[in-house]
Amino acid sequence: MSQSQATINGIFVPNIVPYDARGRIDEDELRHIIRWLADKGVTGFYPNGSMGEFIRLSYEERRTVVRIVSEEANGRPILAGAAEANIELVLEMCKYCADLGCRAVSITGPYYYKLTQESIEAYFRELAARSPIDIVVYNIPVFANEISLPVLERLAMDCPRIVGTKDTSKDMGRFQQTLHTIKRQRPDFSVLIGWEELLCTGLFMGADGGTLSSAGVVPEVVMSLYHAARAGNWEKAKQIQFELLDLFSLMVNAPNFPEGFRTGYELRGFKAGSARFPLSPAEQGLIAEMRSKLACVLAGCGFEEAAGECGIGTSKSSNIDVNAIVQAVISRVQAAQAR
Amino acid sequence: MSQSQATINGIFVPNIVPYDARGRIDEDELRHIIRWLADKGVTGFYPNGSMGEFIRLSYEERRTVVRIVSEEANGRPILAGAAEANIELVLEMCKYCADLGCRAVSITGPYYYKLTQESIEAYFRELAARSPIDIVVYNIPVFANEISLPVLERLAMDCPRIVGTKDTSKDMGRFQQTLHTIKRQRPDFSVLIGWEELLCTGLFMGADGGTLSSAGVVPEVVMSLYHAARAGNWEKAKQIQFELLDLFSLMVNAPNFPEGFRTGYELRGFKAGSARFPLSPAEQGLIAEMRSKLACVLAGCGFEEAAGECGIGTSKSSNIDVNAIVQAVISRVQAAQAR
Amino acid sequence: MSQSQATINGIFVPNIVPYDARGRIDEDELRHIIRWLADKGVTGFYPNGSMGEFIRLSYEERRTVVRIVSEEANGRPILAGAAEANIELVLEMCKYCADLGCRAVSITGPYYYKLTQESIEAYFRELAARSPIDIVVYNIPVFANEISLPVLERLAMDCPRIVGTKDTSKDMGRFQQTLHTIKRQRPDFSVLIGWEELLCTGLFMGADGGTLSSAGVVPEVVMSLYHAARAGNWEKAKQIQFELLDLFSLMVNAPNFPEGFRTGYELRGFKAGSARFPLSPAEQGLIAEMRSKLACVLAGCGFEEAAGECGIGTSKSSNIDVNAIVQAVISRVQAAQAR
Amino acid sequence: MSQSQATINGIFVPNIVPYDARGRIDEDELRHIIRWLADKGVTGFYPNGSMGEFIRLSYEERRTVVRIVSEEANGRPILAGAAEANIELVLEMCKYCADLGCRAVSITGPYYYKLTQESIEAYFRELAARSPIDIVVYNIPVFANEISLPVLERLAMDCPRIVGTKDTSKDMGRFQQTLHTIKRQRPDFSVLIGWEELLCTGLFMGADGGTLSSAGVVPEVVMSLYHAARAGNWEKAKQIQFELLDLFSLMVNAPNFPEGFRTGYELRGFKAGSARFPLSPAEQGLIAEMRSKLACVLAGCGFEEAAGECGIGTSKSSNIDVNAIVQAVISRVQAAQAR
Repeated sequence: MSQSQATINGIFVPNIVPYDARGRIDEDELRHIIRWLADKGVTGFYPNGSMGEFIRLSYEERRTVVRIVSEEANGRPILAGAAEANIELVLEMCKYCADLGCRAVSITGPYYYKLTQESIEAYFRELAARSPIDIVVYNIPVFANEISLPVLERLAMDCPRIVGTKDTSKDMGRFQQTLHTIKRQRPDFSVLIGWEELLCTGLFMGADGGTLSSAGVVPEVVMSLYHAARAGNWEKAKQIQFELLDLFSLMVNAPNFPEGFRTGYELRGFKAGSARFPLSPAEQGLIAEMRSKLACVLAGCGFEEAAGECGIGTSKSSNIDVNAIVQAVISRVQAAQAR
Repeated sequence: MSQSQATINGIFVPNIVPYDARGRIDEDELRHIIRWLADKGVTGFYPNGSMGEFIRLSYEERRTVVRIVSEEANGRPILAGAAEANIELVLEMCKYCADLGCRAVSITGPYYYKLTQESIEAYFRELAARSPIDIVVYNIPVFANEISLPVLERLAMDCPRIVGTKDTSKDMGRFQQTLHTIKRQRPDFSVLIGWEELLCTGLFMGADGGTLSSAGVVPEVVMSLYHAARAGNWEKAKQIQFELLDLFSLMVNAPNFPEGFRTGYELRGFKAGSARFPLSPAEQGLIAEMRSKLACVLAGCGFEEAAGECGIGTSKSSNIDVNAIVQAVISRVQAAQAR
Repeated sequence: MSQSQATINGIFVPNIVPYDARGRIDEDELRHIIRWLADKGVTGFYPNGSMGEFIRLSYEERRTVVRIVSEEANGRPILAGAAEANIELVLEMCKYCADLGCRAVSITGPYYYKLTQESIEAYFRELAARSPIDIVVYNIPVFANEISLPVLERLAMDCPRIVGTKDTSKDMGRFQQTLHTIKRQRPDFSVLIGWEELLCTGLFMGADGGTLSSAGVVPEVVMSLYHAARAGNWEKAKQIQFELLDLFSLMVNAPNFPEGFRTGYELRGFKAGSARFPLSPAEQGLIAEMRSKLACVLAGCGFEEAAGECGIGTSKSSNIDVNAIVQAVISRVQAAQAR
Repeated sequence: MSQSQATINGIFVPNIVPYDARGRIDEDELRHIIRWLADKGVTGFYPNGSMGEFIRLSYEERRTVVRIVSEEANGRPILAGAAEANIELVLEMCKYCADLGCRAVSITGPYYYKLTQESIEAYFRELAARSPIDIVVYNIPVFANEISLPVLERLAMDCPRIVGTKDTSKDMGRFQQTLHTIKRQRPDFSVLIGWEELLCTGLFMGADGGTLSSAGVVPEVVMSLYHAARAGNWEKAKQIQFELLDLFSLMVNAPNFPEGFRTGYELRGFKAGSARFPLSPAEQGLIAEMRSKLACVLAGCGFEEAAGECGIGTSKSSNIDVNAIVQAVISRVQAAQAR
C-alpha cells in the first residue's frame, strides 16, 4: 500500500454491531447490513467506531467485525477503527487491517487517562513511523483526549502515513482552521466531518466527506445530500440537511447511545438484538417512545418498512411512559427533598 | 463469601506493573514488589487500578496481575480492579477474583461514552445482582463517568453486594456528604479516600482507609500516617501529611502518569522497565529532572537507597533540560506566531 | 493602617441584602440584621460578597451596604468585598473602605472575560501596590476567573498588602497545598475557608477561619462549631458539622441563589423582601417547599421562631408544588419529543 | 417602535472604546471611529458589547458610549448592549436606548452567578414583557450563562419583543438547530453569527448577518465578504474568509482581550489609548510582537497606513520579547521545580 493513493473522500458508514440472543455478535445479520449498505451506494465503511461500540467488544470481536465488513464490502474502501489498549496492540490491529486490504485505519486520541498534547503527539508519531497502513487521526474530544490543531498540523506536515482527520468535535472554528492551515499546505490531506448536523456545512466549507452514524440508517438520505453538495446544488443539500436533523436528533438524543441508532436499523428491517449495556425500565420506555416517533419520520421519508410502527405504538407506549417518567421524577424530587 | 464480612478498612496499595525489555509484564519483579510491600505492613493490595495501567493491559494480562498479587499477598486482603469492556466480561473477572479469594472488586464508572446517571445506576444494579464477590464503587470522574452521590446512596441502600466506595474525585464536599448520608445509615459501608493530598483529612472526617498511589513507593510513610491517625495522634498525622505532599507532588506532576510513580519504585530499588506509552524527548528530560529531585526527597526521608541519585544527577540533567524546554517553548511560540 | 496587624481569623458573616417593597435596599432591616449578628457573637462581617449580591447592586448601593455594616458592627472587624468594574473603581472602593475603618477588602478574580493567570497576577500586583488597605484574595472559580496557586504564592511572598485568601473553590487539595506552600513560609497569611460543608475539615487542616453563608442564618450553630474546633473538641465539632450540612444543603440547593439563604433569614424573623432576580412560578413553588422543610430543621435545632412554619405549610405547598413540577416536566418532555 | 419592523440583518460593528491619557473615555476619538466606520459602509453599530468592554465601564460611561454612537451613526441602525447589574437597570437602559432611537438592545445571559435555565427564561420573559424596545438574545456561554436552545425557542415563540439572537457560542450544531427550529417557524426572527471564523459559513447556513469584532478593524474586508455572500458568490466569500482568519487569529489570540483588536484600530490610524486592565511586561512584549505581524498582514491587504510598522518593528521587538518570554518561562519552570 503506497502513499500515492488518492485522498480519502466520500461517505463512510460507521455500522452498528448486531447481537444475538446470547449477546454474541450476530455475524449473519452484520453481513446483511453491510451488503445492504453497499447496495445503497455508500462510499465505504467505518467499522469499530464509536457507533460500533468498539470499546465494548473484546479484541477478538473487533477483528471479527473488520474481517466481516471487509468480506462484504464488495470492493468499497474501509476505514477501520484501531484504537486498542496499547501501542503494540494498535500496531497489531494496523497490520491485521492492512492484510485485509483496508484503505486506512482511524485512531482516536487515547482515552481514560488525561494526557498532555506532547504525549499525544509522541503517540501518533510512533504509530506513523511503524504502521504498515495509512492513518486517519480521529478527534472526538467528548470521549477521548483531544488532539489539538497545532499537534495535528505538525503530524500532517511531518508524517506521510497520516493522511487525514475525522473531526467529531463539533467545533467548526477548528474545522475551518484545519482546512486553512493544513489542507492549504497539503491538499491531499483528507478532512472528514463526523457530525451529521454539520454535514452540508462541512462540505460547503471544503470537507472531503464524512463518517456519519445516520448514514447506516438512512443511506439514501445521506448519499443524496452528499451528491447534491458535490453537484453544487446547495439549496437541495440544505433542504435535505434539515430533514436529516429530525432523524438524527431523535436517534442521538435517545438514552444510552448508540441505542437510538440501533433502533433505527431495526425500523429499516434489521435485527439489532439486545444492547450490550443495561437499560433501566425508564430508559426502555423512552426508547419505545422514540421508536414510534422515528417510525413516523422514516415513513414520512418514504421508507415504507417503518410505517407499520408509526401511530399504533405511539399512543400505547406514550401513556405508559409518561406515567413512568412522572413517577420517576416525583421519586427523585421527593428523595432529594427527604435528604 | 458472605456479606457478613467486616468493613473494608486500612491502606490498600495500587501497585505499578513492571515491564521487561520486550514490553511484557515482568512477573518476577511484580512478585518482588508485592512481597516487599507485604513486608512493609500495608493493609492490602489494589491491583488493576489506574496506577496499574489496567487500561493498557490486555484482558489476559489483567488476570495475570491479579493472580500474581494474590499469590504473593501473604494473606492480606485484595481489592481488585474489574472494569472490563462490557458487563459480561466484568462478571467473568468478578468470578475470577472470587475464585482467587480476593476480598472484593473495585469497579469504575464506565469510560469513553458519556452516560446518564440512570444508565450508570442500571449498570451497577445489574453487577450487584449477579456478582459472586463484593463490589466497591470507584468514583474517579477525571477519567471515567462520575457516579453521582444520589445514585451511590441508592446502590448502598439497596444492594448488599455493594460494600463501599473509593473516592478519587478530590471533592471533599461530596466526601463529607457520603459519610453523612450513606455511612450514617449503613455503618458497615466502607468509604475509602483515593487522593493522598487528603489522606489525613479524609481519615479525620471518618474514612475507613484509602488506596493511595504513594503507598507503593513509600509504604513506611503512608502507614505511619495511617497508624498515627488511627491512634488519634492528629498532629503527627498532619506533620507526615505535609511530608507526603512533597513526595506526591513530584510524582503526580511528572509527565505521562503513572511514569512519576514508576520512577519512584525505581528509586526504591525495583525495575519498573520501559513505559507502555511513548515519551517525547522533552518528557524524558522532565522525568530525569524529577527523578533527581525525588531521590533527594526520599534520601531526606531516610531511604538510603535513593541517596545515590541525589545531587549528581541534578546539575547535569538540569542544564540539559532547561535548554531543551526553552528551545521547545521558543519553537512553539514562533510556530504559533508564524501561523 | 499598618501591616503589623494580626492575622485575620474567625468567622466573618457574608450578610444578605434585604429589599423593600419597591426593590430598594431596606436599610433599617439591614441594620437589624447586623446588630443581631453582632449580638450573637460572630467574629466579623463580610459585606458585598456573593451572598450579598454585590453584582446586582449599583456602585452607590455597594457603598451604602458597607457603610451601614460598619456603622452597626459594634467594633467587630469588617472584610468588605471590593470587586468593582475596573481597577480604578476597585481602588476607589478600597479607599472608601479604609476610611470607614474596615480591616481589609476581599477581591475576587475578574469575572466575565476569561483571563490568563499572567493577567490576573498583574491585576493583583497593581492593586497591592496602590491599595490603602489590606487585601484578601478571594478565589471562587465557579463564578470568576480562578487565581492559580502559583500566582497566589507569588503574591503572598511579594506583596505585604495581600494578607490572606478566602477559598471557595471546594478544592481541598488546593487548600492543603495553600497551607503547605504559603502559610508555612508566611505564618501571618490568613487562610479562610468559604464553603460550609468543609468548615470543620478546613479548621482541622489549619484554616484561620471562614466566611460562611450559613453563619448569617444560624450564627449560633456556626460559632459553636468554631469554638469547639478552637478548643480542640473535634468530636463535637464534627457532630455540629453534620447538623450544619442539613441546613446548608437545603439553602444552597434552593433555586436562584441566594434565595435559599434569604428564606433562612426570614425564618429567623427578618424581612428579606422580594428577590432582585425574577423567579419562575415553579421556582417559587420549590422555594415554598424548601421553606417549610427548613422551618422544621431550624425548629429541631431549637430556633422556636421557625416552628410556626413547620408542618402546616408542608402538606399544602407540597401538593401544589409536586403537581406544578410534574406538569412542567411533562411539558418539557413533550416539547422535547415534539421537536 | 412597532414590532412590524424588518428583520435585523447585515453587519453590526462592535466598536472598541478609546481611552485618554487619564483613562477616561476619549469621546472625540470614539466619534472619529464611528464616523469612519459609517463611511466604510458597515450596516450598523453594536456599542457596549464584549469588544466595547461594557463590563469595565461604569453605568454612566455605558450611556455615554451609546449616546455618542447614536449621534455619529448617520442613520445606521444600532443594536446596543444592555446587560446591566439587575433587571431594573437593564430596563432603564432599554428606555434610554429606545429614546435615542436604537433599533434594538442586545442582552447576554446573566453573568457571575450560575443560574438554571428556568431562572434565565424567567429573566428574559420579564424583560420582554416590560421593555420599550426590541430585544436580541445574546448567547456567549464562554463569558455568561448559556441560554439553552429550548429556552430560546420558547422565548421566540411567545415574546414579540424578542426579535433575534446573536450567537457567539461557536457551536454550529446549535446554530443549525436555531435556524431549523426557530427561524423556520418565525422567519422574521433574526439569527446573527458572532464569531468571524464562521461568518461565511453562518451566512451560507442562513444567518441574517453578524456582529464581528474584526469589522471594526477591517470593515472593507468584512463588508466585501458579506456582499459576496449575499450575491451568492460563495467562492469569493470563502476566499475572503480565509484572509479574515489570519487577521482575526492574530487579534483574538493576543493576550488580554480585547487588546489585540484595540491594537488593530491603532494600526488603522486611531488612538486606542491605554488599556483598562493591567498588562504584565511579558504581555506587553507579546502585544508588540503581534502588532508588527498584524501590520504586515494589514499592509498585505492593501491598508497602506499599517505598512510603516511592518518589518522594522519585528526585529527589534522580537529580540527583546523572546528573551523576556524565555526568562519568564525559565523562572516559572524553576519556581515550579523549587516547590
